[in-house]
Amino acid sequence: MLPKRTLMGPGPSDVSREVLEAMSQPTIGHLDPAFVGFMDELNELLRLAFQTKNPITLPISAPGSAGMECCFVNLLEPGDEVVIAVNGVFGGRMVEVARRCGATPIAVEFDWGTPVEPDKMEDALKAHPDAVAMAFVHSETSTGARSDAEILCALAKKYDCLSIVDAVTSLGGIELRVDDWGIDAIYSGSQKCLSAPPGLSPVSFGEQAMAKLKQRSTPPQSWFLDMNLLTGYWGGGAKRAYHHTAPVNALYALHAALEILKREGVENAWKRHADNHQLLRAELESIGLDFIVAEEYRLPQLNSVSIPDGIDDAEVRSHLLNEFNLEIGAGLGPLAGKIWRIGLMGASSTPEHVALCVSALKSAGVSR
Amino acid sequence: MLPKRTLMGPGPSDVSREVLEAMSQPTIGHLDPAFVGFMDELNELLRLAFQTKNPITLPISAPGSAGMECCFVNLLEPGDEVVIAVNGVFGGRMVEVARRCGATPIAVEFDWGTPVEPDKMEDALKAHPDAVAMAFVHSETSTGARSDAEILCALAKKYDCLSIVDAVTSLGGIELRVDDWGIDAIYSGSQKCLSAPPGLSPVSFGEQAMAKLKQRSTPPQSWFLDMNLLTGYWGGGAKRAYHHTAPVNALYALHAALEILKREGVENAWKRHADNHQLLRAELESIGLDFIVAEEYRLPQLNSVSIPDGIDDAEVRSHLLNEFNLEIGAGLGPLAGKIWRIGLMGASSTPEHVALCVSALKSAGVSR
Repeated sequence: MLPKRTLMGPGPSDVSREVLEAMSQPTIGHLDPAFVGFMDELNELLRLAFQTKNPITLPISAPGSAGMECCFVNLLEPGDEVVIAVNGVFGGRMVEVARRCGATPIAVEFDWGTPVEPDKMEDALKAHPDAVAMAFVHSETSTGARSDAEILCALAKKYDCLSIVDAVTSLGGIELRVDDWGIDAIYSGSQKCLSAPPGLSPVSFGEQAMAKLKQRSTPPQSWFLDMNLLTGYWGGGAKRAYHHTAPVNALYALHAALEILKREGVENAWKRHADNHQLLRAELESIGLDFIVAEEYRLPQLNSVSIPDGIDDAEVRSHLLNEFNLEIGAGLGPLAGKIWRIGLMGASSTPEHVALCVSALKSAGVSR
Repeated sequence: MLPKRTLMGPGPSDVSREVLEAMSQPTIGHLDPAFVGFMDELNELLRLAFQTKNPITLPISAPGSAGMECCFVNLLEPGDEVVIAVNGVFGGRMVEVARRCGATPIAVEFDWGTPVEPDKMEDALKAHPDAVAMAFVHSETSTGARSDAEILCALAKKYDCLSIVDAVTSLGGIELRVDDWGIDAIYSGSQKCLSAPPGLSPVSFGEQAMAKLKQRSTPPQSWFLDMNLLTGYWGGGAKRAYHHTAPVNALYALHAALEILKREGVENAWKRHADNHQLLRAELESIGLDFIVAEEYRLPQLNSVSIPDGIDDAEVRSHLLNEFNLEIGAGLGPLAGKIWRIGLMGASSTPEHVALCVSALKSAGVSR
């Protein structure tokens, strides 16, 4: 039996009993007529979360990394240029994924902890007039920095590029409006601000993205992630064409998590994340922890703070885990050992979580 | 609320309450130290199911189709020739996946419902001396035919080819010995004879497969399915390198399902599947249903029978679903409307399932 933890890292976040119970309902056949209606409902709930009317809005049957790969393999052909913002781990992963598609990534680098600067992206778009797409991470989970997706997507449109947006940590946690912002392709994850278990990646493709897909001269290199085939499976209603076997129980959980979001209201959920961030922020500052991201660009759902001099990263995290069953996140890559990432995502974004975390940090000797 | 069904199609099969309860345990962080031991246990249980000592034995975080893609993208490089047996839907899918890897598939066709003939495969291997791999489906889920994996893998070795084996419907249901038979790479699914929910694909790579992977001149086209990266994540023990976020709760379920297999004993499970097949077979023959596969090659876990003249496929399946909450499988592709596929997989392989199915068919008017 594994210990029961409170999850305040970069994801997964706490999964409610309601969602776990939904997941443990009896498995039904993925081609059962009764399951068709369920799939339609799930797509509609995802449209609400993404704030979109895109018909092609569905969960990929694999984690967020596969959602990323889905966007790139469908929208890029070998030789295509794609301008990619890199301000943390996940922008870097995009570059790698694009390269493996045979595309030519043009990486635009930013300091970790800072947002993607539109001006620098515009320079890159000007310098690469043949680029077919521009990609960036809305909420950089490795640093806690938020970029301005609305401005960046408008920029992509101005230069006739498709926008590909990583919203893994955004969805359900901060303002995100796929239609209003003109996002062409977006992917997320089930285990962050939606608080479903990890394993699914909601994606949405707009009209322009689907047009590019239809115009391809070669099929996408991945059969499993081929959006034409996925669309026939998810979007075909009663005439659905078999593609793969959907992860039925994981979909039950995602459906329940999205129902919770719908009950709360998407904008109320955004506000809750913002409010609890302010609570946490005041408490962390009171014990002398500084955020690594400038105030304006901080993600409320992922709080990255510098580890004070003289404090041992691993020791504190072990103390939290062993004494409080509390998980917070370590730094990744160049930030390993230098920061903690404290998540207030989905069901983990409550005043009780803030209180527990601050008490536990104090108990571990973190104080001014 | 979705209806509760008895699942006797081509998968998913019935998932026991024990497995569903395991799945609904609280989600833990995928990098939690306590989770490392759990992952190691899971890999060891998979080795038992596969009858292998391969260190690289792990569940891909996506359904069987992704497991297939994982084998092909890792083991084939652009231009590589691969001889692929096609005796049903899934052999055909292999050809498509290989093509999308930039490899050159050499499809060897067999009548649907028949097994892969070693002689014809040997002819193809002789005719294509540069082929680097040979692939086939052990248990063709679209027809119910079993091929002789031991002989086919020996043949691959004779011609210096890696063997890639689809064991989606085999694992836990019929004899399968990865080490004794010299299988180089194999993939399966969680939702067939293991009776876990759909969504995971156990894979195992042998020494030769790993050697080919190390010798690649280009990285695999899929980042998500890159076995080098997956190995660092799954095989690294305490030094595990973050790759993607594992689908924690789905892994709980797979672990519980494998524990059940271990308790029963792998060979006992094979025998149970064989015994219940004989029960079903006698009953089906008594109501005039004929198997489409010759006796010697029948899969005990997937019974394909011809729909008698004058019987309406859809009507019968609706009757079973509406009156008995019982799912059986329809035919795929050229067999649509012509056959039923009756699964006796995992927890669905019991005398009670046999009795229910036969009663329901009789009630639907299927009788001699």
